[in-house]
Amino acid sequence: MRRLSPKRQACIYLDMANLTEFSLAESMAVLTRTPATLNAMLRGMPDIWVRRNEGKDTWNALDIVGHLIVGERTDWLPRVRIIMENGEARPFDAFDRFAQSKETQDKSVEIDRLLGDFARLRTENLTALQAMNLQPEDLARRGRHPALGVVTLSELLATWAVHDLTHLHQLSRVMAHQYRNAVGPWIAYLGVLQCAGHGAP
Amino acid sequence: MRRLSPKRQACIYLDMANLTEFSLAESMAVLTRTPATLNAMLRGMPDIWVRRNEGKDTWNALDIVGHLIVGERTDWLPRVRIIMENGEARPFDAFDRFAQSKETQDKSVEIDRLLGDFARLRTENLTALQAMNLQPEDLARRGRHPALGVVTLSELLATWAVHDLTHLHQLSRVMAHQYRNAVGPWIAYLGVLQCAGHGAP
Repeated sequence: MRRLSPKRQACIYLDMANLTEFSLAESMAVLTRTPATLNAMLRGMPDIWVRRNEGKDTWNALDIVGHLIVGERTDWLPRVRIIMENGEARPFDAFDRFAQSKETQDKSVEIDRLLGDFARLRTENLTALQAMNLQPEDLARRGRHPALGVVTLSELLATWAVHDLTHLHQLSRVMAHQYRNAVGPWIAYLGVLQCAGHGAP
Repeated sequence: MRRLSPKRQACIYLDMANLTEFSLAESMAVLTRTPATLNAMLRGMPDIWVRRNEGKDTWNALDIVGHLIVGERTDWLPRVRIIMENGEARPFDAFDRFAQSKETQDKSVEIDRLLGDFARLRTENLTALQAMNLQPEDLARRGRHPALGVVTLSELLATWAVHDLTHLHQLSRVMAHQYRNAVGPWIAYLGVLQCAGHGAP
């Protein structure tokens, strides 16, 4: 069997590392599914699962979906565009993590409407992202986060997907919290009830 | 305005406490939605999100759904029946948390088939549960867990629902773990990447 030159071998390892670390198609596979996941979990749910939180200054399901909506409106795709158009020259605008509170603290807000808004905005944004026809070399382009410094486009897109997952993780914890007492002695076996929230949501 | 007698007042508080703690309808609202939630998250997903775990002796999505299937087959409804038929006299059978591994370690197992099996079994079990026509007084019936001791039917049913949530919490964490490096400096802001798994899944 012919051995590869060290240079060619290194290229293969690099490809494998990239494949392991990030793929646009795999990120899209998460991003496209999140609206349907939240819809299945929350549409038509009774108030206990939608309007209760984990205590003072914590989020309920309305806050979580509201926050995801704000991200679609102001954060993720605008940051992709800033990287593609301005690179590191123009730092991203800061992401207001509490922008949704004005809307979601309105007692009349309904989860079903928020779920519909989120699904529509996500579809619009992923359609726009696909229309940008990003090439592998684009994924290494750099931008500037106002607090974290230099980041790449692939890191931004990976974070968009993991941000969905962090809020599914939070949502399952917030819901489980409502039954913290109801499970009785089984509390010892339920990992989600040991999760302290990790500071970040 | 007429004031209530202390006894009547106490009854109202007791009702409110019960309402807060457990409702069969609210538990059913979670239990009925979990198959569709997992379906939305996982059906047709590329291998990175389905076959990767968090390292040695940890679970991937196949293991998680496989474990939920075992619970439907051997654990939850059988325990409901033991409480209703035998009370504390007959302890529950122990739940084998690793019973799914023989099936899910088969490389040819497909997530789509597991999702279908889980949805079918869950529907059958909830149909059977509804046919039992449980009354409020049934929810206080007691059974005996082999390790935890005396538990009530309402605790069992609440745990069934929170067990779904603990595995959604785990699944979002396992998926996020695959992009631990890909998110670059954003790791600091993503709570799900700070979650150590809490011993229990």
